[in-house]
Amino acid sequence: MASEQAPAVEMPVTLSKYTKRVMLKTLLGRSDGGVGLIGKRIVIGGWVKSSCEIRIQTVTPPPPAHVVSPKDVTCSEVLQSRIPLLRSLMKVFGAGEHRAREKLNVIIQKAPQPSVSILQVSDGSCVPSLQVLVDSVLATPCQVMPSGTCVLIEGVLQRPSVQGKHVVEIQAEKILHLGLVDQSYPLSKKRLPLESLRDCSHFRSRTTTVASVTRIHNALTWATHGFFQDQGFLHVQVPIITSTDSEGFSEKFLVTTLLSKGKKNDQISSTENAGVSVEAIWASIKDKSKKVEELSRTDSNKEALVAAQQDLKKTKELVSQLETRQKANSGVTIDTRKFDFSKDFFARQTYLTVSGHLHLESQACALGNVYSFGPRFQAEKSASKKSLAETWMVDVEMAFSELEDAMDCANDFLKFVCKMLVEDCMEDLQFVLKRIDKAVIERLQFTMSSSFERISYAEAIEVLRQVAGKKFQSNVEFGVALTEEHQSYLVDEIYKKPVIIYNHQKGLKPFYVRLNDDGKTAAAFNVVLPKVGTVIRGSQSEERFDVLSSRMKELGLPKQQYQWYLDLRCHGSVKTSGFSLMLESLVLYATGLNDVKDAVPFPRSSGRANN
Amino acid sequence: MASEQAPAVEMPVTLSKYTKRVMLKTLLGRSDGGVGLIGKRIVIGGWVKSSCEIRIQTVTPPPPAHVVSPKDVTCSEVLQSRIPLLRSLMKVFGAGEHRAREKLNVIIQKAPQPSVSILQVSDGSCVPSLQVLVDSVLATPCQVMPSGTCVLIEGVLQRPSVQGKHVVEIQAEKILHLGLVDQSYPLSKKRLPLESLRDCSHFRSRTTTVASVTRIHNALTWATHGFFQDQGFLHVQVPIITSTDSEGFSEKFLVTTLLSKGKKNDQISSTENAGVSVEAIWASIKDKSKKVEELSRTDSNKEALVAAQQDLKKTKELVSQLETRQKANSGVTIDTRKFDFSKDFFARQTYLTVSGHLHLESQACALGNVYSFGPRFQAEKSASKKSLAETWMVDVEMAFSELEDAMDCANDFLKFVCKMLVEDCMEDLQFVLKRIDKAVIERLQFTMSSSFERISYAEAIEVLRQVAGKKFQSNVEFGVALTEEHQSYLVDEIYKKPVIIYNHQKGLKPFYVRLNDDGKTAAAFNVVLPKVGTVIRGSQSEERFDVLSSRMKELGLPKQQYQWYLDLRCHGSVKTSGFSLMLESLVLYATGLNDVKDAVPFPRSSGRANN
Repeated sequence: MASEQAPAVEMPVTLSKYTKRVMLKTLLGRSDGGVGLIGKRIVIGGWVKSSCEIRIQTVTPPPPAHVVSPKDVTCSEVLQSRIPLLRSLMKVFGAGEHRAREKLNVIIQKAPQPSVSILQVSDGSCVPSLQVLVDSVLATPCQVMPSGTCVLIEGVLQRPSVQGKHVVEIQAEKILHLGLVDQSYPLSKKRLPLESLRDCSHFRSRTTTVASVTRIHNALTWATHGFFQDQGFLHVQVPIITSTDSEGFSEKFLVTTLLSKGKKNDQISSTENAGVSVEAIWASIKDKSKKVEELSRTDSNKEALVAAQQDLKKTKELVSQLETRQKANSGVTIDTRKFDFSKDFFARQTYLTVSGHLHLESQACALGNVYSFGPRFQAEKSASKKSLAETWMVDVEMAFSELEDAMDCANDFLKFVCKMLVEDCMEDLQFVLKRIDKAVIERLQFTMSSSFERISYAEAIEVLRQVAGKKFQSNVEFGVALTEEHQSYLVDEIYKKPVIIYNHQKGLKPFYVRLNDDGKTAAAFNVVLPKVGTVIRGSQSEERFDVLSSRMKELGLPKQQYQWYLDLRCHGSVKTSGFSLMLESLVLYATGLNDVKDAVPFPRSSGRANN
Repeated sequence: MASEQAPAVEMPVTLSKYTKRVMLKTLLGRSDGGVGLIGKRIVIGGWVKSSCEIRIQTVTPPPPAHVVSPKDVTCSEVLQSRIPLLRSLMKVFGAGEHRAREKLNVIIQKAPQPSVSILQVSDGSCVPSLQVLVDSVLATPCQVMPSGTCVLIEGVLQRPSVQGKHVVEIQAEKILHLGLVDQSYPLSKKRLPLESLRDCSHFRSRTTTVASVTRIHNALTWATHGFFQDQGFLHVQVPIITSTDSEGFSEKFLVTTLLSKGKKNDQISSTENAGVSVEAIWASIKDKSKKVEELSRTDSNKEALVAAQQDLKKTKELVSQLETRQKANSGVTIDTRKFDFSKDFFARQTYLTVSGHLHLESQACALGNVYSFGPRFQAEKSASKKSLAETWMVDVEMAFSELEDAMDCANDFLKFVCKMLVEDCMEDLQFVLKRIDKAVIERLQFTMSSSFERISYAEAIEVLRQVAGKKFQSNVEFGVALTEEHQSYLVDEIYKKPVIIYNHQKGLKPFYVRLNDDGKTAAAFNVVLPKVGTVIRGSQSEERFDVLSSRMKELGLPKQQYQWYLDLRCHGSVKTSGFSLMLESLVLYATGLNDVKDAVPFPRSSGRANN
């Protein structure tokens, strides 16, 4: 093996653009898995996913790892003592990390035993890791083996020294950068459940699953722009801060500077508590009491018992301080009628937009076919796994088009993105198939090739009413919105394919949806997919001034707020139709995830915005 | 000519996907300008830009327009009486539009005189308009000629009946849709200045200039995604609502639900006033008084004088009501210390993000090279023409990379987007060159081909200090930020090309920028372009825990708020670098516009969020 590598050592270092290393995707993503590059000297960087150590039993200076025969080694996963409690404590008392680092440095300074660390290193660019061999002369196992360690390594690609799932590995010759890991690293345990990962959103993309989800998310974003640009749509920005209520169905966030002017001390004292809720500390007190109890029962380690008792006492003191402070702040009722919003930044009340629809429509009434892709907000304290306070929506609007056109476009769009995913993200899809949902690829392939069923809302009601031997949780009745259960039944049991339900009862849809001739239904549609339910809501807009105006009166909407929107009907009104899609629901569809909090990097929901 | 068309009338109607018409871009954007399609029957839709009427002098039934010889016609622009004041009044008193429409209908019902309307119709897909001939049998000039009228027309493409700048025109045979225009249409005058157009953001994309700007904006968005996707970057969402202050330099918007719960009446009364500020009404009173004065001086029309006097009186009453209401609301001081943000939606104080940098960095520390593209906010009451309260930023972050890499990437990115614009948007660029800025194309071509000058901040200071015979408005001194004037001088007078200034004095840059070995400067850079100044701000981040931590202490930053960010240095820290770009500044660069309020569809700035 050594002879194979000899001539290659002289080859130049191959680097990616803008980053001092070869991205693993360009190496391991090759059809030969990188075998054709064996012998090349390269630089790779990434984070250790897992590791094991090969101890070298000879006392002579350690030979290169690849000549060590398998019978000479013992391989064991490093035992990493993990004390999650320590971490919470450090958070509470402040400068803990620094002390923990000092401690780690002491460990590292011990003389290394001759050994080789075998690291599985991932750089987030693809699913597989690269196997990296690091001789203890370069770095001790303590330094490089803890998962989460960052390494930038120069070395030579070679065939694996020990048979396994890898077809190449790299023998480190220089360590160019080493980013150590503190004992409190939250991802040190393997395969944490997704729920626990939500508490460390700044780290969780380092797990293979979340990284795959992020790459699929990226592919969906890119495919979305790709589809609309290909079809000649223009991307138009709609405002995030708005004084118009676009939907009327959702609670909104107010945007203001009235409460944040020059109150620096107050802001700081409030953010000091951020991330450390009284509830969390009470939970840790419970854990700590348990620990004290256990230690006093076993009676094996007096020092540990004393330390745990002191720790518990300190934490109790802290929680009492926090509670006192919170009490002092509470009990204030806000009389908003006294607020003078004309003194606010925008000289009026402004909100975070719920939907880009109305603004986008004004652009369609000038530019033809337009789309917008950006964040939308709703302040619903919902516990639904499918909604977030902050989501990214694709809003589409087309001039000179009617309901049918929007349904066609929604249909083609969904098929396109499914096709793009299957073509460009197979490795990630196969990974989520293995880890999350076996049906993922099948579902995508089915959607991209099947024709969507189109039924009217009235037909859907009729079909569901005739279902025998099935009791739905809520009654099927004209005028009442179809529940998730109803929709799933239509998609999974009756039509066994994606379903578009159109012409809904008018009361179920926003004021701007075009009234049908029957006077009862409105020209709206939902696209319902298996697993995730409704992913797209679309409609044809009411282009007739009189009808729109009287519909607004009927609903008691403040005319002044919508005057600019009504203007579009007074000056060159046109038939427009379009739809909206919450990107996150497509991520759920394409990954099999059940909770949208796992589908975005920094989910925002009631009580959760901790960074 | 008639014989040329005869066989073609039978050809099928060609429609675009999802819209019931041919987009003008696909017709007029052909290399032959559409001549090859002469004889085809098509459907086109759009809005009338300008028009003239050809009166047919014969009393026999009107022949098709194309056989009318030029000497038989008189061509005159329709005189459209425009009463902007009427519009403001209607806004104030409510249901005005409806009455105006009724009036218009009466006009339309008059018997049409035999004539042909010649319309220039644009659909927003390209710069040129299509010439459309509408016989008065199909629709009267009153109906179709006012600019802003929406038409969907089926007809046959033919050579122009009258020589002009067009190479094709369409003879209408059916009017499939007609969207009339009310007298109050704000864009009825030709060539309104951009400043006045800002007051009708929902209509201004119908002007050729704003439509071109929007298409250039779209091309920049698409090119941005294209560059980063090509280079293997992942698009990652950063949160818009955040509890972390990313910059420390800007005022922030607070996001809350504390002030908007169940106060419906209050909200409505506040929005009722929206768009009608007391100041605006005072201005209209001034105009009205002037009118009354003029009328009483000329004494020609007593009725008009009485009407004007009544109008003035009513408006004065209104303003007095409004002022009384405002007085009742004002004078309330808000004691924010009494607010209990633990009762807010997110159980803490949250803001609109100023920058995606910190969050994006956490993703780079897992996934390698990432970018984010979305809205960012700052609550600065600045009168600068280059800043907005809501902008779209491209944030880029790369792991295993240093200052130099980020500068390379920023350089390549700018060149790429300039190249894409020149390749894909030439028609729009040529239009803005004609209307706004003669240097536009030259500037883009220069940027895409020139090498950027790289100088350190210290060098820049030195170079500027040695400039003889030039007195800068503010002194050039180490430790003080370079002003726009300084930067322009470097770019326009000294280096005569884009300049990258790096290693700024540390106090001028955010806390997370890496400290250089000299202890005085930090590893940051600005890319300065001609005309627009700094478009990119980049830096290498401080990856050393101890240095970062002591820098934060130095600046008095609340540690708790940044704990999650500090965590990244405790667990597998890596060198990262990146940059941010405000997309709107590139729009200014690529269009020659001077004010960023003209570069986005719905600009948000102090006192302006009227839809």
